[in-house]
Amino acid sequence: MAHSTSPSERVLDLDGTRLKITSYLRQFLEQKAQRALTDGLPTEVPNVLRDFVDAGGKRLRPLLCAAGWQAAGGSGLPEPVVRTAAALELYQAFALIHDDVIDRSATRRSRPAVHRALADRHAKTGADAHVGMSAAILIGNMALTWSDELVTGAGISAARRVSVCEVLDAMREEMHYGQYLDLMASLGSLADVDTSLTVIRYKTAKYTIERPLHAGAALAGAGPALRRSLTRFALPLGEAFQLRDDLLGVMGDPKATGKPVLDDLREGKRTVLLALAVQRADSTQRDVLEGLVGNQSLDEQGALRVVEVLRETQAASAVEQMINERYERSLAALEEAPVPAATADVLRAIASLAVDRES
Amino acid sequence: MAHSTSPSERVLDLDGTRLKITSYLRQFLEQKAQRALTDGLPTEVPNVLRDFVDAGGKRLRPLLCAAGWQAAGGSGLPEPVVRTAAALELYQAFALIHDDVIDRSATRRSRPAVHRALADRHAKTGADAHVGMSAAILIGNMALTWSDELVTGAGISAARRVSVCEVLDAMREEMHYGQYLDLMASLGSLADVDTSLTVIRYKTAKYTIERPLHAGAALAGAGPALRRSLTRFALPLGEAFQLRDDLLGVMGDPKATGKPVLDDLREGKRTVLLALAVQRADSTQRDVLEGLVGNQSLDEQGALRVVEVLRETQAASAVEQMINERYERSLAALEEAPVPAATADVLRAIASLAVDRES
Repeated sequence: MAHSTSPSERVLDLDGTRLKITSYLRQFLEQKAQRALTDGLPTEVPNVLRDFVDAGGKRLRPLLCAAGWQAAGGSGLPEPVVRTAAALELYQAFALIHDDVIDRSATRRSRPAVHRALADRHAKTGADAHVGMSAAILIGNMALTWSDELVTGAGISAARRVSVCEVLDAMREEMHYGQYLDLMASLGSLADVDTSLTVIRYKTAKYTIERPLHAGAALAGAGPALRRSLTRFALPLGEAFQLRDDLLGVMGDPKATGKPVLDDLREGKRTVLLALAVQRADSTQRDVLEGLVGNQSLDEQGALRVVEVLRETQAASAVEQMINERYERSLAALEEAPVPAATADVLRAIASLAVDRES
Repeated sequence: MAHSTSPSERVLDLDGTRLKITSYLRQFLEQKAQRALTDGLPTEVPNVLRDFVDAGGKRLRPLLCAAGWQAAGGSGLPEPVVRTAAALELYQAFALIHDDVIDRSATRRSRPAVHRALADRHAKTGADAHVGMSAAILIGNMALTWSDELVTGAGISAARRVSVCEVLDAMREEMHYGQYLDLMASLGSLADVDTSLTVIRYKTAKYTIERPLHAGAALAGAGPALRRSLTRFALPLGEAFQLRDDLLGVMGDPKATGKPVLDDLREGKRTVLLALAVQRADSTQRDVLEGLVGNQSLDEQGALRVVEVLRETQAASAVEQMINERYERSLAALEEAPVPAATADVLRAIASLAVDRES
């Protein structure tokens, strides 16, 4: 059973950990830029990644990795944990950069998406959208490569290295399957709640919450029983996180999220929110949703009309309720988890950050 | 000093090794498909990769990995070598699938490129070119993920695992820098021989020849001296390999190469061949090159006109000469390399395959 501790007793200082990971990554990428300069290679690659990391991000995966380490009895934040946590964040940079290409998103973290920024930067030498997209694919791939390098050089003990890598391999496989399902779902019905939930499970819940915790736990040599406990906490929390994301994506404040509300709707992203709305809609409301969602020329006014339908059908409040149920289930699982009380407190703080947020 | 051995004395049977790697990969991907079926995940991902691997490929990198292993004193083809070699081939599948997206290539291994095939397969549910490209990016990323999984589960001894991973990390960093340079060069002058040579070095020589040899050598615990010897053999050979590729790309027989001659020219690929031609061209010839190379609507007749200029300016024969010089330099380095005579023989056979080929 976990008991509450005051913030000062927490073993993991969330803000301090975020800063530590960010500054580790910045230093790593600055060394890459220095090295590229020496070798006559394009410094633009590490510089774009450094700017991307600096532009924002909640650092949820690194925090969970650190928490998983402590859940399994690890103490402090030794080098192997910092590097593995940083590797997860750089992997996320890869995932977001490719995602924005696939989703044709123009904006990320309140700045032009990487593919847009690169097309613009090289426009005067003739770069077009395809060159920008190609450069973004390659820079994404480099982020992935360097994420692996962070793990290779993390100084993980020989006894634990393979099991840490197995967790990371599984995480990546699940994420790509989730993305592939998501892409193919975009060709299917708007009303398919089950498929949207499967996508959420693979693309977010496992990738964002479960596997980062497992990676940290594997660094501390955790066995399968602790991992299963963490999974019971992680999966409902991860679903709640994505459901919140979907709500913020269309009804959030763009100044806080760093993404315009039009992106998700223009892309026609299949979310549980939309699926529920379509299921509950009358024929007029259904015409609105089917006519506007996935429409590349959707404007602000059209987006407001969609949001109105999400409210009228009470799809939005149904999703709020799903978030609460999952959040509660996650906290209940944590009560049963064999983790130190101070770590449980940290996990509760992270859970609250993941679900109760405006960005 | 290396001495010739007859094929029957060779420690590495090239055809047998190719078959072994191919069948290992096929089995690995079929297990992935089986697993996807069980888990309700898209079997299309492993199936597309299995077909891609089955459709062809010289298996140069796996052969070099096996040769590197034997060069450093390893014997036979134990599981860690087979899996690492298979990982290199699956990594190459990732690289080619992304490359075809970036280069807008329509054909690969005599079949529609993956992004084209997927757009066609899902056309009836509304997939367009962007969906095909997105699916190809994701399937490429999965190939990379599974390449890592092959290495994680290869059973490499703890003492050697980090140094094998360091080689693979370096290989991937170099390849991505090479591709990025290549992409940016496509916005620059057609006549820049030096940049084309730098691209060749990173994108091909290190990636295709040097690092696969180093990976095999690292599996056998090779030290830096042997690696440097292998580098002296590898880099000129890798340059010769790419120069041959560039010649075949515009002057080869599409039936043998599996790629139409128009692709490289339409893409405006900056090759040493073209750079030399532009440098040697008179103003009429230069107009032909600058008007047609990189022109997306280039037709067969235009391509023939370009090839004529490559012949007239003797750029093609200059490249043949560069290939020969590098091939000779590579073989001379091999004479000095501290590798078993039988391995030197294998490396000579691979060198000949890499340079003297029609596909």
